[in-house]
Amino acid sequence: MASIFTKIINGEIPCYKLAEDDRYIAFLDIRPVTKGHALVVPKEETDYLFDLPPDTLGGLMPFAQRVAAAIRAAAPCKRIGVAVLGMEVPHAHVHLIPLNAESDLDFRKASSLLSPEEMDALAARIRSYFQ
Amino acid sequence: MASIFTKIINGEIPCYKLAEDDRYIAFLDIRPVTKGHALVVPKEETDYLFDLPPDTLGGLMPFAQRVAAAIRAAAPCKRIGVAVLGMEVPHAHVHLIPLNAESDLDFRKASSLLSPEEMDALAARIRSYFQ
Repeated sequence: MASIFTKIINGEIPCYKLAEDDRYIAFLDIRPVTKGHALVVPKEETDYLFDLPPDTLGGLMPFAQRVAAAIRAAAPCKRIGVAVLGMEVPHAHVHLIPLNAESDLDFRKASSLLSPEEMDALAARIRSYFQ
Repeated sequence: MASIFTKIINGEIPCYKLAEDDRYIAFLDIRPVTKGHALVVPKEETDYLFDLPPDTLGGLMPFAQRVAAAIRAAAPCKRIGVAVLGMEVPHAHVHLIPLNAESDLDFRKASSLLSPEEMDALAARIRSYFQ
């Protein structure tokens, strides 16, 4: 069965999309730890990040770098933290989390921080900064 | 002034080294969150991960992939998690953390889990699996 992320990639499930190319997609996490929290997902459906082909893994962080710059422009913060846990959804994904302190990277803080309208507006703002 | 990681790279400060090539080095974190917790560090000294040149960033994860496989062989776990916070040492680094549950990725758990002799033995075992 296709993962929830593959369904998002195929447009069967909506998302607050931030950026996309032929190999990767980025969208807002619907339960953000901090404002601007996004997921970067390789379109190739592989459960464990480090089972991805080295080439796909190699392109992931440079794509994430461009997404991180756009998030930081739209939602100012000290820096964008990175986390990969990967035990919930069996489709490798990288969390990009705006941080002002190390303690901000705490998944227990995940919550429905923003309304759908605010998520839409934030995604549009981040998209406008994506290069 | 050179960062503590540059001093490790230059051999001025010892480390429990796991792997090294011309661009990256990996060694055990001396305050592991779980057994086998390692740092992967680009030799180029840049404070913020996403300020690295895309090419350096692109090689980082494929190198980390090889380190992660060796850690997992030496210290069995469900998977190797990834985290980048980067507020303590101003030299970009990636945490590789053996996980059996998502809650294992918790920096408040960092402690001097193993004796120096145990760290030495663990590093040697991981090195023996590095390919």
